[in-house]
Amino acid sequence: MDFAYGPGKNHLFVPGPTNIPEHVIRAMNRNNENHRTPAITALTKSLLDDITKIFKTTSGTPFLIPTTGTGAWESALTNTLSPGDRIVSFLIGQFSLLWIEQQKKLNFNVDVVESDWGESANLDILESKLASDKTHAIKAICIVHNETTTGVTNDLTKVRKLLDEYRHPALIIVDAVSSIGAIDFRMDEWGIDVVVTSSQKALSLPTGMGIVVASPKAIEASKSAKSLRSFFDWNGYLKFYKTGAYWPYTPSIQMLYGLRAGLDLIFEEGFENVLLRHKRLAKATRLAVEAWGLKNCCQKEEHYSASVTAIVVPPNIDSGEIVSRAWNKYNLSLGVGLNKVAGKVFRIGHVGHLNELQLLGCLAGVEMTLKDVGYPVKLGSGVGAASAYLQNTIPLIPSRI
Amino acid sequence: MDFAYGPGKNHLFVPGPTNIPEHVIRAMNRNNENHRTPAITALTKSLLDDITKIFKTTSGTPFLIPTTGTGAWESALTNTLSPGDRIVSFLIGQFSLLWIEQQKKLNFNVDVVESDWGESANLDILESKLASDKTHAIKAICIVHNETTTGVTNDLTKVRKLLDEYRHPALIIVDAVSSIGAIDFRMDEWGIDVVVTSSQKALSLPTGMGIVVASPKAIEASKSAKSLRSFFDWNGYLKFYKTGAYWPYTPSIQMLYGLRAGLDLIFEEGFENVLLRHKRLAKATRLAVEAWGLKNCCQKEEHYSASVTAIVVPPNIDSGEIVSRAWNKYNLSLGVGLNKVAGKVFRIGHVGHLNELQLLGCLAGVEMTLKDVGYPVKLGSGVGAASAYLQNTIPLIPSRI
Amino acid sequence: MDFAYGPGKNHLFVPGPTNIPEHVIRAMNRNNENHRTPAITALTKSLLDDITKIFKTTSGTPFLIPTTGTGAWESALTNTLSPGDRIVSFLIGQFSLLWIEQQKKLNFNVDVVESDWGESANLDILESKLASDKTHAIKAICIVHNETTTGVTNDLTKVRKLLDEYRHPALIIVDAVSSIGAIDFRMDEWGIDVVVTSSQKALSLPTGMGIVVASPKAIEASKSAKSLRSFFDWNGYLKFYKTGAYWPYTPSIQMLYGLRAGLDLIFEEGFENVLLRHKRLAKATRLAVEAWGLKNCCQKEEHYSASVTAIVVPPNIDSGEIVSRAWNKYNLSLGVGLNKVAGKVFRIGHVGHLNELQLLGCLAGVEMTLKDVGYPVKLGSGVGAASAYLQNTIPLIPSRI
Amino acid sequence: MDFAYGPGKNHLFVPGPTNIPEHVIRAMNRNNENHRTPAITALTKSLLDDITKIFKTTSGTPFLIPTTGTGAWESALTNTLSPGDRIVSFLIGQFSLLWIEQQKKLNFNVDVVESDWGESANLDILESKLASDKTHAIKAICIVHNETTTGVTNDLTKVRKLLDEYRHPALIIVDAVSSIGAIDFRMDEWGIDVVVTSSQKALSLPTGMGIVVASPKAIEASKSAKSLRSFFDWNGYLKFYKTGAYWPYTPSIQMLYGLRAGLDLIFEEGFENVLLRHKRLAKATRLAVEAWGLKNCCQKEEHYSASVTAIVVPPNIDSGEIVSRAWNKYNLSLGVGLNKVAGKVFRIGHVGHLNELQLLGCLAGVEMTLKDVGYPVKLGSGVGAASAYLQNTIPLIPSRI
Repeated sequence: MDFAYGPGKNHLFVPGPTNIPEHVIRAMNRNNENHRTPAITALTKSLLDDITKIFKTTSGTPFLIPTTGTGAWESALTNTLSPGDRIVSFLIGQFSLLWIEQQKKLNFNVDVVESDWGESANLDILESKLASDKTHAIKAICIVHNETTTGVTNDLTKVRKLLDEYRHPALIIVDAVSSIGAIDFRMDEWGIDVVVTSSQKALSLPTGMGIVVASPKAIEASKSAKSLRSFFDWNGYLKFYKTGAYWPYTPSIQMLYGLRAGLDLIFEEGFENVLLRHKRLAKATRLAVEAWGLKNCCQKEEHYSASVTAIVVPPNIDSGEIVSRAWNKYNLSLGVGLNKVAGKVFRIGHVGHLNELQLLGCLAGVEMTLKDVGYPVKLGSGVGAASAYLQNTIPLIPSRI
Repeated sequence: MDFAYGPGKNHLFVPGPTNIPEHVIRAMNRNNENHRTPAITALTKSLLDDITKIFKTTSGTPFLIPTTGTGAWESALTNTLSPGDRIVSFLIGQFSLLWIEQQKKLNFNVDVVESDWGESANLDILESKLASDKTHAIKAICIVHNETTTGVTNDLTKVRKLLDEYRHPALIIVDAVSSIGAIDFRMDEWGIDVVVTSSQKALSLPTGMGIVVASPKAIEASKSAKSLRSFFDWNGYLKFYKTGAYWPYTPSIQMLYGLRAGLDLIFEEGFENVLLRHKRLAKATRLAVEAWGLKNCCQKEEHYSASVTAIVVPPNIDSGEIVSRAWNKYNLSLGVGLNKVAGKVFRIGHVGHLNELQLLGCLAGVEMTLKDVGYPVKLGSGVGAASAYLQNTIPLIPSRI
Repeated sequence: MDFAYGPGKNHLFVPGPTNIPEHVIRAMNRNNENHRTPAITALTKSLLDDITKIFKTTSGTPFLIPTTGTGAWESALTNTLSPGDRIVSFLIGQFSLLWIEQQKKLNFNVDVVESDWGESANLDILESKLASDKTHAIKAICIVHNETTTGVTNDLTKVRKLLDEYRHPALIIVDAVSSIGAIDFRMDEWGIDVVVTSSQKALSLPTGMGIVVASPKAIEASKSAKSLRSFFDWNGYLKFYKTGAYWPYTPSIQMLYGLRAGLDLIFEEGFENVLLRHKRLAKATRLAVEAWGLKNCCQKEEHYSASVTAIVVPPNIDSGEIVSRAWNKYNLSLGVGLNKVAGKVFRIGHVGHLNELQLLGCLAGVEMTLKDVGYPVKLGSGVGAASAYLQNTIPLIPSRI
Repeated sequence: MDFAYGPGKNHLFVPGPTNIPEHVIRAMNRNNENHRTPAITALTKSLLDDITKIFKTTSGTPFLIPTTGTGAWESALTNTLSPGDRIVSFLIGQFSLLWIEQQKKLNFNVDVVESDWGESANLDILESKLASDKTHAIKAICIVHNETTTGVTNDLTKVRKLLDEYRHPALIIVDAVSSIGAIDFRMDEWGIDVVVTSSQKALSLPTGMGIVVASPKAIEASKSAKSLRSFFDWNGYLKFYKTGAYWPYTPSIQMLYGLRAGLDLIFEEGFENVLLRHKRLAKATRLAVEAWGLKNCCQKEEHYSASVTAIVVPPNIDSGEIVSRAWNKYNLSLGVGLNKVAGKVFRIGHVGHLNELQLLGCLAGVEMTLKDVGYPVKLGSGVGAASAYLQNTIPLIPSRI
């Protein structure tokens, strides 16, 4: 019946794809419709109007693209840049690495600024590069907001500040795949030009929708960008936005209805409450990690991620074993260590539609798994530490008071 | 959108209705069908053939009735007894009490044997009654297998043994609503005559199907039983069983497909493994209760229930507050104390489609709630105690090894 | 995968169970919940408030019972009558017959007034019985509003009028299983005392909810009615209504959410529009029948049913073959002829969530089936006749103008 | 509740997106899962093994890409060609036009061979081009198998034959978006190099999966193709195919389970039976069109499409009005005329999970709509003509005999 059935609920704690709310599953449970009707037009309009709220932009133009985060990256790059353009790109983990590989494949001149995995983007180097770039050869700064490999969140306000200080016109293009909806993001206030996210992270939808929001400056840049592009071309959308038909090609109406339900839930909870919930779950996770005597892969507290925590295991333990044991004994899905940190870290995603008891169940599972693989953890220690914090901070559910 | 929306998953730990597996939700996600087709006939036949396996009977006749447990009780009684018949009925909690009230309403002459709530059925008294009943005036023994109010499981083999010893022909009619599918039940081996359960407990379906299985002796008794009955009359079914049409009236085809999927999952996991899982979750719960310094409402270890644990709170605490706080702060649904134990116990249902990390999340929630209401629990203590046991006993998931 | 898979959509035209709207299927696609929460209380209250609107009563008390129509019948009878009570009951088809059999089983003194199948209830005989019943021995008049076997709708205003004329206090108990929601029903205006319907007819839900509405006079009668009853006892409900907990036992929360969605759709379409749609589909069906040269089983135009049309086949044809051929060649589910009209009629249910093109697809299927079984129908004739009427009468869909 | 609610089922007869079987909707009704588990690997492998069967290839390599048909086109082109490459491309309708626009955007040297809309691809011109292309400058022939705008199916065997005759090594790249699964396609036998389809057509899934199958020769070509590509790069897949992880980025697991269910249904019906069903529905549609006195946009019988019929309306009628009236009065979704044939044709899609009575309902709706807009059709004429053919040709449903 299933390819690997296990009793009870699967505990999904990879940092995406995340748990879909029942409301969204319900909203998507439907037959196809003709996408060329006033109904879908009205639905689309409501989505374009509302999606920007979680990017905190009023000037940005959103594109809902039937693709994954990888495709959304490509859309951000090819619409704003021309082959050969110099871009500064920060390598701080596997996802920034993959993005950089894409940037190279697409023939940009990528100036890679690497940090140790677990560190944030090295903005000192950015400063020196900006200082010496009198001709404004640098066309864009590409940076991940939250590096999902290491659980490191970069401070984007500093990037803006540097560009402003040096009056540098480079675009800021941000991979916010694992942050939008989970970590405060203020596109307008921070002066970000292109932001990329996707549906299966904090938005808690199935995979399949890449979301790109472009500032007016980015839209302007797209007019002269010479990268070849067809499927990902913003112009296709912009032309249809003008006519009110919205779609250059057939969208998944299930995903549209799903996004509508997902946004409704976010607004019902209160978007700021959603962000606080993510902070709370992240802090609780870190307290458990500390209680277990393990280290956070992220080196500085100010960069701790509200979406995912990467946990370093002792050298005698293979983190891959933790992940596979969690799955085949506890029906618990954890994130593996990737590339440089393969075998060295495992990850707990605490992003998306999730509450505290779900997390505590996960932490209990991690404790047992740690013991299974030979790490001498005191069972209950992490859960206890996390609970002590949560018990004091979880607010009552407003609709139930 | 919802009447009381809370973020994340609802943690459902009442002892019914229980968590429905995604597979079953999917199977039920369908339009109506004409129930008078060979397709539904074949589906029904497969259900009647398989449902008896979880009652461990080959001689029993099953009835799948569009009703609740209360209706199934009525079906068991009115088909086998006549008004005025003397029956011995054990009162050990709220559900046995409600059943006894029904028995009285239906004009049986009910000989109530009461125990303190938390104790099991007093079989010594039964023995004395049987001993003195030379005329076989007692027509039936009515007993709950598992009293959901107090988490007490009666030993039915002893009832059989007493009847055999006294060569007494009384029927044994069992409310197994919260035990079938969770606690070992051997209808044929134990010589039980009528067994009643319902869909929303260990079968992990929505409410709406009462299931009654009748032994050949019970079927025989139904021929002379004079209680008026129409909707619940077994003859309606038996007549249709003979023709192969099966249904005297329109069944819910969604429930039929749901039951099919639910049984498939039980067999995929292995029914004995399902029973072991329930025992494991129950034991883990009791270890947590012990670690919290609280008492089990069930007085004797041999009667501990694998479906539900009722936990006694200290006199200064109102268990109702625990239940309402768990719901409005942690999105956790616990069982309240009922009637005599209202305010004094709360209940953790560990029955149905549930795994260990779900339970540990619940236990973590209970700990925080206890602290919220002023009980000085050490956070993590219960989870730790439960985990220590579980980590040693949870088997690998066969399909994932 | 399925027990009898056929490509494309199943065309469901039995007079119940009917087609469930996607909205309702979606609303029911959910896990269980604890039914003892303010959320379910609020949901239930909204249902009790709204369900009476489609019965057109403000004084009636509704009961939503986890049962089928057969159980709802029993609830109507046992709560208002005592064994031995004389009731007048009209036999005009299979469903009135089954109800009468139930009445007898429940030990009422049933005064059966039989008509030929295809005729309406013989109210002349009722008049003579009332005229001669000076002692008011007749306690109730039991009548089907719409006999689903023959497609005959009785005029209930005449029953009221007769009782009024003879100042007779008998209760009027109505089986409106296949009429409520499809055919105008004015409980208060017509002075009906108990009305019975169920979820899988015009309400377009799965089977599993019997709905009974009781007038104040019926509630009063229930206080002295001596029929034994437990599961179906209104007092169980009334007691819980007072406390605001509503449920004497566990309801199916899926059915509650489904009913909420179903009522929302009815109100969105406009209830009077729903009734007009049913009239329109019924008339179109009859025009097709006429074009085919076949006869309506219902003998008088004033009794034509808006829910179902029973069609008489020529003597050389077995209507059962039509039904089985429709199903195994065209994936079309039609209603068989029952009992006295078995083999002689087949039925087209045009009740519930259905629109005109669905019906025309069905009519096209019936035409081909008629030809398959040897009846010389002109293909397209029935569809053409129905279309001519429909094209002139279908209103624009308000939300799409 | 909905943006444009209409009672009853929506009759979806655009040539994509098509009707999703309930089985597939059910299979997709699920939470996310970690895509990096053996379960998803096994599921993916089963899909890659089975999807090629409906392309009738054993040597082709399939790619399941989270995109639409437009993206799949781009994947086919950029993986096999280099900027500046000369390609011959046939313009016979809106979709071939859009593809040609894409080809130009991607900087290929496109040699457009145009036909009147309603005609098939002009292969005589292809022959002359091949004859004169001694240097093999032509790198690829791009052709739609079925032009969805006009309902014209090209004969691909002739393209192969011409290339063979002239021993020309150009690749054949085929847009089979609206044909795969509906119209016989023999990738290996016909020597096709790249085939493109998408999920929301004959596969009857939601939009969101583009499917590309590449011949060994195409895979070889991809090694030297110099078009920039990242998201659509086959190498990403091929690298992961080797490791058995399959996915270079996160797939929609809902779509994977949906595809699994969809393929299971196709195989249960029998793939050849699926193709016959499409032929039958297409022929029935054309008979209705003829009965209405209207013309097929497709000019030659040998090119009639089994997926879609484009119908030419008289000059005094605007086909757009037909489409909008069908939707706002009959809840019927028809395809509009596009570009050159806007206002002149409307389209009936008879592709995907659909049976005969669904089509006849649609045809009845079209008849009424035609009358609504002033075209003097005899109601029932088209349905009658179609029925006469269908009644003789529809086979019994094997599982129901």
